[in-house]
Amino acid sequence: MADWPQGWEARGTPPALFRRFEFQSYRETRGFLDALAALSEETGLHPQNINFGTTYVNVTLESDETDPDSLAMRDFAAKINALVTGA
Amino acid sequence: MADWPQGWEARGTPPALFRRFEFQSYRETRGFLDALAALSEETGLHPQNINFGTTYVNVTLESDETDPDSLAMRDFAAKINALVTGA
Repeated sequence: MADWPQGWEARGTPPALFRRFEFQSYRETRGFLDALAALSEETGLHPQNINFGTTYVNVTLESDETDPDSLAMRDFAAKINALVTGA
Repeated sequence: MADWPQGWEARGTPPALFRRFEFQSYRETRGFLDALAALSEETGLHPQNINFGTTYVNVTLESDETDPDSLAMRDFAAKINALVTGA
């Protein structure tokens, strides 16, 4: 079950998921950050770390021992992807 | 002119300023992040990097070669301090 949502890279054990999002402008970056904050409010899930500058956002998700296949983390990563693809 | 605004640590040459802010809850962290975003909108100044989890925010400011004494960076750091002290 190693196929992670598109664009995400598994790191470490238990795996944390990492993805870098790049944007054309601070306004786009700000839009993504606000949408991600709203998703966290809605789901109660929070990335382990968010690291951003004016045109990039690095997101790290941590898995949860009670979720050996990291299903919740996968789902969260897929929902974050949807914020940029609108899928 | 090395006395930086309270809580900030100078790193590297030209100096970047770094400070870690810690909060009791994600709600407090969110409030600070929103206030910092508003300050950036207002001043047009953006931290080089913001790195946060649910209860901490690490802020890095970069100096500008045209500002040898980093006066603009100092002022920005002081304004960010005021977001937490309300001073």
